[in-house]
Parts: sequence; structure tokens; C-alpha cells
Amino acid sequence: MSVQSTSHRAPEILNRHQRLPSGCEIVSGIRDRSLRAREVLETYLSVIEADEANVQAWAFLDLQAARTRADAVDAMSDAQREAATLLGVPVGFKDNIDTAEMPTGYGSPIYDGYRPGRDAACVASMRLAGCNPLGKTVSAEFAHRHPGPTCNPWNLAHTPGGSSSGSAAAVAAGMVPLALGSQTTGSTIRPAAYCGVIGYKPTYGEFNLAGTLANTPSFDTLGVFARSVDDIALARRALLDPTIPAVTPKPLHGTRVGICRTPWWSQACSQTQALIESSAEALEREGAVLFDFDATFDFTDLEQANIVVSGYEFARTLAHERRVAYEALSPILRDGRMADGLVHDYADYVRALRTIAQSRIRFDAAMNEVDFLITPAAPSSAPKSIGSTGTAVFNMLWTVLYAPAMTVPIANSDNGLPLGLQLVGAAHSDDKLLAYGHTVLTALAA
Amino acid sequence: MSVQSTSHRAPEILNRHQRLPSGCEIVSGIRDRSLRAREVLETYLSVIEADEANVQAWAFLDLQAARTRADAVDAMSDAQREAATLLGVPVGFKDNIDTAEMPTGYGSPIYDGYRPGRDAACVASMRLAGCNPLGKTVSAEFAHRHPGPTCNPWNLAHTPGGSSSGSAAAVAAGMVPLALGSQTTGSTIRPAAYCGVIGYKPTYGEFNLAGTLANTPSFDTLGVFARSVDDIALARRALLDPTIPAVTPKPLHGTRVGICRTPWWSQACSQTQALIESSAEALEREGAVLFDFDATFDFTDLEQANIVVSGYEFARTLAHERRVAYEALSPILRDGRMADGLVHDYADYVRALRTIAQSRIRFDAAMNEVDFLITPAAPSSAPKSIGSTGTAVFNMLWTVLYAPAMTVPIANSDNGLPLGLQLVGAAHSDDKLLAYGHTVLTALAA
Repeated sequence: MSVQSTSHRAPEILNRHQRLPSGCEIVSGIRDRSLRAREVLETYLSVIEADEANVQAWAFLDLQAARTRADAVDAMSDAQREAATLLGVPVGFKDNIDTAEMPTGYGSPIYDGYRPGRDAACVASMRLAGCNPLGKTVSAEFAHRHPGPTCNPWNLAHTPGGSSSGSAAAVAAGMVPLALGSQTTGSTIRPAAYCGVIGYKPTYGEFNLAGTLANTPSFDTLGVFARSVDDIALARRALLDPTIPAVTPKPLHGTRVGICRTPWWSQACSQTQALIESSAEALEREGAVLFDFDATFDFTDLEQANIVVSGYEFARTLAHERRVAYEALSPILRDGRMADGLVHDYADYVRALRTIAQSRIRFDAAMNEVDFLITPAAPSSAPKSIGSTGTAVFNMLWTVLYAPAMTVPIANSDNGLPLGLQLVGAAHSDDKLLAYGHTVLTALAA
Repeated sequence: MSVQSTSHRAPEILNRHQRLPSGCEIVSGIRDRSLRAREVLETYLSVIEADEANVQAWAFLDLQAARTRADAVDAMSDAQREAATLLGVPVGFKDNIDTAEMPTGYGSPIYDGYRPGRDAACVASMRLAGCNPLGKTVSAEFAHRHPGPTCNPWNLAHTPGGSSSGSAAAVAAGMVPLALGSQTTGSTIRPAAYCGVIGYKPTYGEFNLAGTLANTPSFDTLGVFARSVDDIALARRALLDPTIPAVTPKPLHGTRVGICRTPWWSQACSQTQALIESSAEALEREGAVLFDFDATFDFTDLEQANIVVSGYEFARTLAHERRVAYEALSPILRDGRMADGLVHDYADYVRALRTIAQSRIRFDAAMNEVDFLITPAAPSSAPKSIGSTGTAVFNMLWTVLYAPAMTVPIANSDNGLPLGLQLVGAAHSDDKLLAYGHTVLTALAA
């Protein structure tokens, strides 16, 4: 695949990505005093000031508070700088993540201006690590499908994807080097692909969800967006603990790579299909050993089980809104996942959970035979119109199976918009997946 | 075991249990207009007015709002009455469960008077079902171990257990027929045993936890307290859906019962040990087939894995309080589970999760061979002093293994305080467990 740049904004976006410091560069620069936190912040704020009116990535911004925090970082001692994993790194938090000092609107008019009493665990952990939270990024309504106003930075007529629309777009536009989102079906991997950034969905349970709005508790995870794999690992260090290793690229020679076209292959456009095939060939040229994962794993029943579980749980998660604000819910939410969930009864739900639990055991065994999978991140590049966030058909499997996944942006479509490759690893092998992601990015994006 | 009643309050407590209508009786009585919701409410409120100064089960009560709601129930049409699963049933919610119309203090002075913006999913579901929430029941600090002021209704010098102290005590004292609590290690089963009521901890994931304070997300569940198994099933119907069956007692003849003394048997007092042995003998006389479950299942490593996972997650769940209110946390919380959690690193954590996941697969297989297990609910009856909530050593296993469990109050200790038997079922066989619980209660409490 060759990089195409027919969108008028693509050269500008790529230029921004090259000149902006990454999260890791910010931390090391502030530590050795070659960068000032305030100067880094102003660089990012200038992008926001220039482009937010176009992109509309933010539900809330407090630039003055961010400046005060940056100045406090610049007043830190060497020891304080050494202890802060995210020292002075500007960060965006999806607006389904509770923040005590900023409003949290959940992408719904019902919660316009709502201020929770506690920071979510992820916010507090990243603040303990010294990050600078600039604001809240636009979420689709209750992290489902009804979109906010955010546009795709590569071409404003296209969706950034969702539900983590603002986080993906903010990182892609160069407004922050790092943003948190969430994923219940495909809310991180897909927008990352549409916006040409790295998106990472951890193993289920890996990041603490306290204070993050529940959607489908059996599947919900956080998500991380960045322009480099190293910055994803940096976020993991802040969210988990300082023992998380920096990313060490792994050689591809002898690596066992599963190609997974999935039962929905026919829904992938020709360019997405070609991306998978050409990526597989390129990995093979680098010495990887390829496997046809579709031949070894049976995905039957998982799509239906996902519909039952996510509907059943979502309808109950939003019981409060059903009770007090039903008319203020969007039709796509009320008549879609919520209505589905009220149709399926407890016996359906338990059957679906059992189906998935059995599939997870088989999947974990199958993943012992490969180092990672490659599979589409989305059917195509970002669809035109911001009225829909696209489809999660290529993301649902890995979410349901608890597997870590990442979007590796390695090519652009003929329309100039990014195309993402999805890498999937074994549960609790997230650091290994990120290491392979780094290698694949280097090998294929050249 | 014979029922002993040396506590001066025991006869009074038993008398209250006999004269108060159960949740099921309230619903059917209000439906057929043989009871008025207001009259039912006043009966329960008179207990609260008489005994709350002694028991201190409540963190918040709004009697006037409860009266208004009861009057609204009495104005309902027949069709509205028919549709309401919990029609007019007075309910208490543990104060770690978010309520939009009542303060939610999480058992900590940090959140004194805090008012969340949404009802938790369980509160909203039960309100949709027509319950009457009287108030919030006392929780140990953040549902951990630092106790509130609640006393055991059977003997005010003894602990009611925790962390669901207020819910257990309120149901035991006859202040409400139904209360919700939660369990992360033993916070429902143990206080139910100490307070002589039925406690039920569902299969992990069974009840939606949106809006319930996280402690250890990998283990957290809600818990339900009632005086009858039928009322537990009633709560399940409201929280899940109307297809949940009423409890049909199952014959014991041919039932396969596993006796599980656990590796901590020596920590059980002689009366608790005698309760298990005599219960086993009584079940055998009823035709049950007994198995020695300790001989078929290896519990090694689960205690340590539980310490690692609960510490690691708890320290991160409370990252906000670590950051902004560390000095306001109790020493037992800061220096106990939170400090533990900051010692164990990510690799320890993942190893512990894998150990537990493997044990769950073996446990699910082992549970195919038995209908339910009997095991101690606590080492002894409620310890003297309200300064400690007792130990969860006999509850931890089943929580970690995702299994549904219930406390069946079938005897009193020599000191007049209740002793509970714990029944444990296979994951997602909660209705079957409740049916056996009903049978065991009838057979053994006689």
C-alpha cells in the first residue's frame, strides 16, 4: 500500500505529528530541563486554538487551569520530576470518565454541566503521575452510538468514529499527545483507525474502571490513544505501576502471525482486504510464519452472544435514565441496544455468557500457538458524514474474548483518509502485543 | 443444634420476625388490597423509631419521603399494582450504592453529605419495580473494614459484621424486609450469619454494579438480605427480569451435597464445626448423598492470590482518595489493603489473576458433581465489640471463584447469637441454589 494524500488536510496533519513532542519526549525533556512544561503546553494549546473550531474534539477545556498546572510542574524539584511518570504531559479524558474538577456530561444533554464528586481511578492515577489534564473529549451519548459534533481531522466531512470520537480526533489533530477513551465493542480501535493514530484496548480488567461510566460491564475497558507505541506504554506505566517495561521491539523472524479475516470479511472494502493481504506478505518477507487463524478458531455464535449480553446489561446500566429521563435519550440508543436488552431475558443472557466463556477458553488455547493476529480494524476508512460513527463489526470479537488489541496506522486509503491494521494478542500479554506493534509499525509504515 | 436464647433481645427479635409481613406478603397484600402500603410502612417505621437509637443501622433516613411514596402506591390502579414487582416494599440500600435523591457517604467522612448525580443501576431497577427506599444503611469505610456505629440487634455489645453492617442489622431488627449490600470478600454472607438473616451473594456479574462504589472490581458483587428465601427471589426478579422463577423447594433425596471444611477449618469454633457436622448428618438422614469436597478440590494459592488481587485493585480504585484525602482514610484501610496493593506489582497481579482463572475452570468442573456445598459462613457467632467486623476467611474462596453463596440461619450459639450455615452453588445456578436453600432452611431450622 502506498500512502495517498488527496485530502487537503493530510499534509498539515502529518506535519503536525512530526513537529510535536511525544509524551516520552516531554517527560524526558522536562526532567533534564531541556523543555519547560509551560512551553510544551503552549505548543499544544496553539493547535487547539487553531483547529478546535473545525474539529470540535472537546466537550470541555480549561486552558487557564492547565497553564497553572504547567507552571507548577516547572517549579518542581529534580526528585519530584524523577517520580512523575507523566510529568507535564497534556492529556485528554473522554467525557464518560468522571472528573471532580471538570464537568462530565456522558455525551448526553441529561448531564450537561454535571460535576461528579470523585475523579475516576484512571484520572486520579494519571494525576498522581503528574499529567496535565486539559479537558474532556467528546463521547457519543453514553459511549454508545449517537454522535457528538466531532469531525475527522484528516477530512472534516468524515466521522472520526466513536464512541471515543474526541479522544481519537484530539490526538490525530495534534491537540494532545495522549488521550483516554473506552471500548465496549469497538469504541477505541475503530476511531483510532479512522483518525490514523495508535489505539490500544487492554485485556479486559487490566485498567481500573472505577468512575468510568458503565455501558456493558462484562465487556467495558478503557482505551488509550497516542501517536507512538512508546506513549501507550507510558500510559500503562501511569495506570498500572512503574514496573511496566518500556517497549522493546521484537524481531519478526520466526514470529507466528495469525491472519484473521473473520466471518465478516466480505464487509471489508477492497482496500482494507488488500491492506491485510499485503501486510501479511510483508511480514512473511520479514521472516514471520503465517497461520490462517480462521481455519483454527470457530467464531460461530459470538456475534449473537455479544448482542444479547451488551443489550441486556446496557438496558440495566441505564435504568436510572430509563426511569427519569427516557424522552431525553436518542432514538438510536432507546430503540437500539436498550430495546434489544429489554427483549432478551435472563435465560438468554446466561446462555450467551456461557457461550462466550467457553469461547474464551478455546481462544486462550488457540492463542498459545501464535504471537499475534492481524485483522481489519474497520471495514474501510472513515465513512463520509459525521452522523454515524461507523460499524464495530471487526472489533466485537476481541472485546468479547477479553483480548488486548491495537490499531497500527500504516497506510492511507485512496481518499486520503487513514487505514488501520488491527493487531490482537493473548489475554494479559499486552506488553508483548505493544512490542510487536512497534515492530510492525516500523516494518510496514516505511 | 438447639436454639439457645441467652441474649435478652433474642425473644423480642424473633417475635418481630414473626409478626412483620415479608416482601412477598406485602406485594400480594397491596395487590389484592388486603394491605395498604402506608400501613405496611408505618409498621416498619415503628420498629425503626423504637430501635434505631440502639442499633444505628442507618446512615440516612427520609421517613417523610417514604410516607409520600407509600401514599402514591395506595393511589395506584390495579394494572399499575400488577406491573410492580416490589410494590410498596420498604427497602434499605447500603451507603456505598449511589442514590440521586439521598446522600451517599461511602462510610467515610470524606463524603459526608455527598449527593451523586445518578441512582445506581440496582436502585433505579428496584425503584422501577415500585419499591420504597427508606434510606441508606451503614457501610464500613469504602466497604472495607473500618466499622460504622451499627450494633448487632441480637446483642448490642456485638458486631453485626461488615462491611454491609447496616443492611444486615436493619433486616435482622425488622426495620425493612429487604436490603441491598455488597460483597468483595465476605461483606454479605458474614454479616447475614452474625445477624441471623438470609444473605445472598450472586454469581459474579449477575447484578449490574453501575453506580455501586468499586472496591475490587474483579470480585465485587451486590448482596441481598431478607428474612425469607422468597424475598431474595423477589429482589432477583426486580434486579434481573420478571422471568426469574419463584422459589420451588427441591427434595433432598438423592441430592449431592459437598461438605467443605476448607483449609481454615481449625479457625472455626467448636460450635461452628458442630453445626457443619450436624447439618451434614441431618441432610444425609433426608436422603442427601454426601461428598467430601476438600478431598476433590485443591484450594492452594487462592488465599494469597486473593490478597494480591484485592490489594492491587483496591489501591487503584481509591487513587482519588489517595491523592486528595489520604489523611482522612482510616489506618486499617491505609495500612492494610491499600498498602498491600502498592507493594504488589503488575507481574504479581497477573500471576494471581491467572491462578484464580485456572482455579475457576477446575471449580466449575468440580461443581458438576455436586448440587451444592455446605461450609461455615463465619468462624463463630458475632464477636463481642463493634470495633471489628470479624473475619471473612470462610467467604473469600467463593467470592474469588465467582460462585453464588447464601447464608441460611439455622441455629443460635450458646451466647444466644445466630450461627449461619453457608450454601454454595455453581456459577449461574443461583435459582437452583436458592431453591436448595429454602429446603435446607425448612429441614434444619425446625
